[in-house]
Amino acid sequence: MIKVGIIGATGYAGAEIVRLLMGHKDAEIVWYGSRSFIDKKYSDVYRNMFEIVEDKCLDDNMEELASKVDVIFTATPQGLCASLVNEDILKKVKIIDLSADFRLKDVSVYEEWYKIEHKAPQFIDEAVYGLCEINRDKIKDARIVANPGCYTTCSILTAYPLVKEGLIDPNTLIVDALSGVSGAGRGAKIANLYCEVNESAKPYGVANHRHTPEIEEQLGYAAGEEIRINFTPHLAPMNRGILATEYATLVKKDGKLPTAAEVRAAYDKYYKNEKFVRVLPDGEYPETRWVETSNYVDIGFKIDERTGRIIMMGALDNLVKGAAGQAVQNMNILFGLKESEGLEIVPCFP
Amino acid sequence: MIKVGIIGATGYAGAEIVRLLMGHKDAEIVWYGSRSFIDKKYSDVYRNMFEIVEDKCLDDNMEELASKVDVIFTATPQGLCASLVNEDILKKVKIIDLSADFRLKDVSVYEEWYKIEHKAPQFIDEAVYGLCEINRDKIKDARIVANPGCYTTCSILTAYPLVKEGLIDPNTLIVDALSGVSGAGRGAKIANLYCEVNESAKPYGVANHRHTPEIEEQLGYAAGEEIRINFTPHLAPMNRGILATEYATLVKKDGKLPTAAEVRAAYDKYYKNEKFVRVLPDGEYPETRWVETSNYVDIGFKIDERTGRIIMMGALDNLVKGAAGQAVQNMNILFGLKESEGLEIVPCFP
Amino acid sequence: MIKVGIIGATGYAGAEIVRLLMGHKDAEIVWYGSRSFIDKKYSDVYRNMFEIVEDKCLDDNMEELASKVDVIFTATPQGLCASLVNEDILKKVKIIDLSADFRLKDVSVYEEWYKIEHKAPQFIDEAVYGLCEINRDKIKDARIVANPGCYTTCSILTAYPLVKEGLIDPNTLIVDALSGVSGAGRGAKIANLYCEVNESAKPYGVANHRHTPEIEEQLGYAAGEEIRINFTPHLAPMNRGILATEYATLVKKDGKLPTAAEVRAAYDKYYKNEKFVRVLPDGEYPETRWVETSNYVDIGFKIDERTGRIIMMGALDNLVKGAAGQAVQNMNILFGLKESEGLEIVPCFP
Amino acid sequence: MIKVGIIGATGYAGAEIVRLLMGHKDAEIVWYGSRSFIDKKYSDVYRNMFEIVEDKCLDDNMEELASKVDVIFTATPQGLCASLVNEDILKKVKIIDLSADFRLKDVSVYEEWYKIEHKAPQFIDEAVYGLCEINRDKIKDARIVANPGCYTTCSILTAYPLVKEGLIDPNTLIVDALSGVSGAGRGAKIANLYCEVNESAKPYGVANHRHTPEIEEQLGYAAGEEIRINFTPHLAPMNRGILATEYATLVKKDGKLPTAAEVRAAYDKYYKNEKFVRVLPDGEYPETRWVETSNYVDIGFKIDERTGRIIMMGALDNLVKGAAGQAVQNMNILFGLKESEGLEIVPCFP
Repeated sequence: MIKVGIIGATGYAGAEIVRLLMGHKDAEIVWYGSRSFIDKKYSDVYRNMFEIVEDKCLDDNMEELASKVDVIFTATPQGLCASLVNEDILKKVKIIDLSADFRLKDVSVYEEWYKIEHKAPQFIDEAVYGLCEINRDKIKDARIVANPGCYTTCSILTAYPLVKEGLIDPNTLIVDALSGVSGAGRGAKIANLYCEVNESAKPYGVANHRHTPEIEEQLGYAAGEEIRINFTPHLAPMNRGILATEYATLVKKDGKLPTAAEVRAAYDKYYKNEKFVRVLPDGEYPETRWVETSNYVDIGFKIDERTGRIIMMGALDNLVKGAAGQAVQNMNILFGLKESEGLEIVPCFP
Repeated sequence: MIKVGIIGATGYAGAEIVRLLMGHKDAEIVWYGSRSFIDKKYSDVYRNMFEIVEDKCLDDNMEELASKVDVIFTATPQGLCASLVNEDILKKVKIIDLSADFRLKDVSVYEEWYKIEHKAPQFIDEAVYGLCEINRDKIKDARIVANPGCYTTCSILTAYPLVKEGLIDPNTLIVDALSGVSGAGRGAKIANLYCEVNESAKPYGVANHRHTPEIEEQLGYAAGEEIRINFTPHLAPMNRGILATEYATLVKKDGKLPTAAEVRAAYDKYYKNEKFVRVLPDGEYPETRWVETSNYVDIGFKIDERTGRIIMMGALDNLVKGAAGQAVQNMNILFGLKESEGLEIVPCFP
Repeated sequence: MIKVGIIGATGYAGAEIVRLLMGHKDAEIVWYGSRSFIDKKYSDVYRNMFEIVEDKCLDDNMEELASKVDVIFTATPQGLCASLVNEDILKKVKIIDLSADFRLKDVSVYEEWYKIEHKAPQFIDEAVYGLCEINRDKIKDARIVANPGCYTTCSILTAYPLVKEGLIDPNTLIVDALSGVSGAGRGAKIANLYCEVNESAKPYGVANHRHTPEIEEQLGYAAGEEIRINFTPHLAPMNRGILATEYATLVKKDGKLPTAAEVRAAYDKYYKNEKFVRVLPDGEYPETRWVETSNYVDIGFKIDERTGRIIMMGALDNLVKGAAGQAVQNMNILFGLKESEGLEIVPCFP
Repeated sequence: MIKVGIIGATGYAGAEIVRLLMGHKDAEIVWYGSRSFIDKKYSDVYRNMFEIVEDKCLDDNMEELASKVDVIFTATPQGLCASLVNEDILKKVKIIDLSADFRLKDVSVYEEWYKIEHKAPQFIDEAVYGLCEINRDKIKDARIVANPGCYTTCSILTAYPLVKEGLIDPNTLIVDALSGVSGAGRGAKIANLYCEVNESAKPYGVANHRHTPEIEEQLGYAAGEEIRINFTPHLAPMNRGILATEYATLVKKDGKLPTAAEVRAAYDKYYKNEKFVRVLPDGEYPETRWVETSNYVDIGFKIDERTGRIIMMGALDNLVKGAAGQAVQNMNILFGLKESEGLEIVPCFP
């Protein structure tokens, strides 16, 4: 039985790790870290856990934690994980960091987009970007897994095969995405009050959202070159879900656009055996309702011959495949468990 | 492995049975009945089931079905189950009927409230009202289980111990309840369009909703007398959830109202060992978000000494404990399985 | 042109006064008081007012304000209005207080339910309870109008004629009500975050909500005696709207229940000429969507002969008739304007 | 007083015309056409109109109607207006058509995208595209005004000045938009049920939505050449609102990108004096909540120097500026009334 500690167990992502691990047969949570609620029963913070979780919340002491658990999930604001981790800790325990601290390989890019100093740059190199379907082999032996962002998981998986196979020009890529409100976290902010968000949609972080360089770096690896894209997130009035609609110019071969069959073949090449990636039939597009509460990513596409562009669309649950689910998937890979253990959840509808 | 057939597999309740049984290790669905979608792939109707369910929808042939399965769930409009069932079928197969056909013992009450003739009154007597926590022992040997309504499960379980123990006057009982929209089913009606329901709340079926006699009959058994109550359902803009707020006059003993401790003791007497009934701490009241997607019923109460009344409150997920979850729980009882098999779902929040 | 000052202009109720007065031809706002946003442009706080309101927010100085305006609306937390008002101010200006400070005639009841000391009890007697349809004549000459609460306006107007005419026993009255989330105000609290409220319904303030004594006092006047009722508010996931479902035992005459026609006659007696009270046809019940953004109260009722009770139902928009709209209606009465000026808004649907 | 007839008065757009005209001092509705509800009271279909509209619904007889009114609004499915209109009618009455029948100048484009034969191509030439801010002068003398679509009004107004001034390359334009559900109309379809739409977002009509050629035609006039764009609509779980996020490559001058000031100057050139177009301050982006129930279009933009693209964003209320409001604005222009009469509605929030 793998012993799990969570730092930041009372945020939405942390709470989703708890939900998922309650159904995981090889892992048990032994540390519910939450600086805001130390000594409070976890189920007093999340009443859904009443009579399910009996533990109290504990402090965020990573040193102590490292000696008690096999893996630590950090579901905390940017900067915290980097400020706590050290070589001693990494000798004892695996870390799956849900923040952005170890996602970007270039520390100057991190510091420019996040506006904070990186406190543990010495570990950036060894950290593995935990996009399971792409980096599975490297994740196995990592000490630090940088769990990808919600928008990025969706954006990258949706475009990856076409970038990798050279079917689209990656520098024409435009990612227009929307998210449910749980992505904004559980902080008490006026902007996230029910009446402010309900019955409205809005763009935010236009041309400067922090997931931009993450998408660029990862798709850049696929393209074999540095790329620049546009990414615009929007907030939509729903609890969960990321929907990414992506545009790119198709690369012609012998003066002809790729066919739908060729595009599908590219997707199949990478995802045919991936349990959690579902490429929809032609003419079907993803909807967030069909993946809710589950670890699936649904993908669809449409070629527009009039403009020579392809529209690629992906949907996932931001708290599952976009955060806690992928984190558990990474844990399963790290410990040699069945990769889908604890994640075989049928999407709940309606 | 228990073989399951579902008649009405493409309504919301039927689809929820499918979702739950996907996670049940001792049952497999071999018949997805849906007259509206015969020969269509089930996952073309419910895209969340893509790459999970590969079966096509079949007709509603109960005779044929009876020879192929161990248990039939009928998640269909009132009248259908009664019109199909017969002695031959019942010799071969257990029936768990999610409609109202076998819930009321008095056929004239059924015909008065439902405005249809009952086609199989000969089976009413033997049918067992499938409120698991109350009728567990009778359910075990039943051939027909009448799965309770969503409002009724919530309303009865919330008041049952106090009625049974004589702490409240059952004829003063007023049940004011609200439901999410999935309770209205998947029919294409203007009244259930998004824009008609969203941002609004309304009462309906005032003083004539069909769940009224069901509550009266069951609580009447607990009271040991016929009772008359008021029940008012409301529609609230959310997908799932029943919240029942119930008022009754407390019965004084020696001129004194029962104490909160006495009320709690009554709840404990019946629910202390019930996994799916959670009586909340004093001062805490149920909220539908804390039970969503799960089989739990949460209950709270408050004594108002100023008026001598008690306010009892219950919450459940109408599609789970209020329909499909309880149906699966009944199946588990019928077949001697662990009662919570397939139902150990942690409520999903947010 | 009546000069208006608002203290608390950046809360939801204050902002609704602004919205309504933008369409009022005899009033202009000259003071947008908001301690939290002093010197900030009002339209930077509420972007809907961009290019409509050019003013900046000012402090809450009631003395200074009194010399500049004809009427002050206080849309502030309990206690503030009472702490600011004095005889000098009242000699210069009318006050319409949207808080509870002057609603209850018995200061000890106020202090018991609100848990604060009343700072200006000397003005309680002269303050007029601003329920326009009932107290119109007294409001005309008032210096302080105590604008009723949202739940109370709905609860009282729905039951008033039947209490007044002796058709129901007022001590059997149970008010079960629900509110949209804007009633909780614009404070940054976790409990009111989108994801906490969305897809959920909950009771709160059970048996101790502060609107209880307000309903009791006003309906007590109608009954000609002190009464005790039950009132349970609920939160529903929508921006606006109050729906009150009220139960009471009908008073028999000569052993017979009142008829629907008699009940309707009672409603007609008080509301036939009331523009903002709409008593719906038999068999029709109010829904919050039909009054949204408007000053209407819709009322319906149903007699249940089985139990001898009547179910009365009322719906209004909590920010309009439940707060700002009624406040403007009171202003119109105070200044001898057409009572519906600025309020002839057709409910906006969907 | 202008006499108004509405054909299709019981759809959402028709009902919004009714709401707006109730507050219009120079127009009165004398014909509520609704084939589905002939002889039914209008307020029985829309209960918000109870005690406000006393008329019954009438048939869709355009000939008879033409002799009774000054202007006819057709808020009906594509094809109906074209099938009814003729020279006799046009000699008597102005027509403002909210369908697509007269929006596209090239009848073959209409027939290709709408898959129906055009029944009155002889009137296409004289019909004026009723985008008020752009075509005001031509609208004045029109007999048929083709009221623009909701997505198109938003998409065109957001990009128009930059296309017209040559600041962007129009063939790089990508419009990614989302709409509230009222845009889907009031038909009883499963896809628009509350539970199907709530808590989900989806793309639809990808690369083949009918508003595409309408945007291309109008922006093509501005560009002075035929253009091809991508347009992807999405459905979001809210009643009202269109949000368009538009991407285009900026045209360099002397090797330099236009500055934000130059872009703003272009917007100001066309919209400085437009009451209903609000260009937001730098760094502010439109949100649908700020325009709800009103006739405003809010616009914001952001230059991304990294990619050389500009992101332009627009928001409006699909039923007001996107349909009924613009129709009333067109009526005001046609009859020489104050253009904002009946439309000076402050956006209602929350």
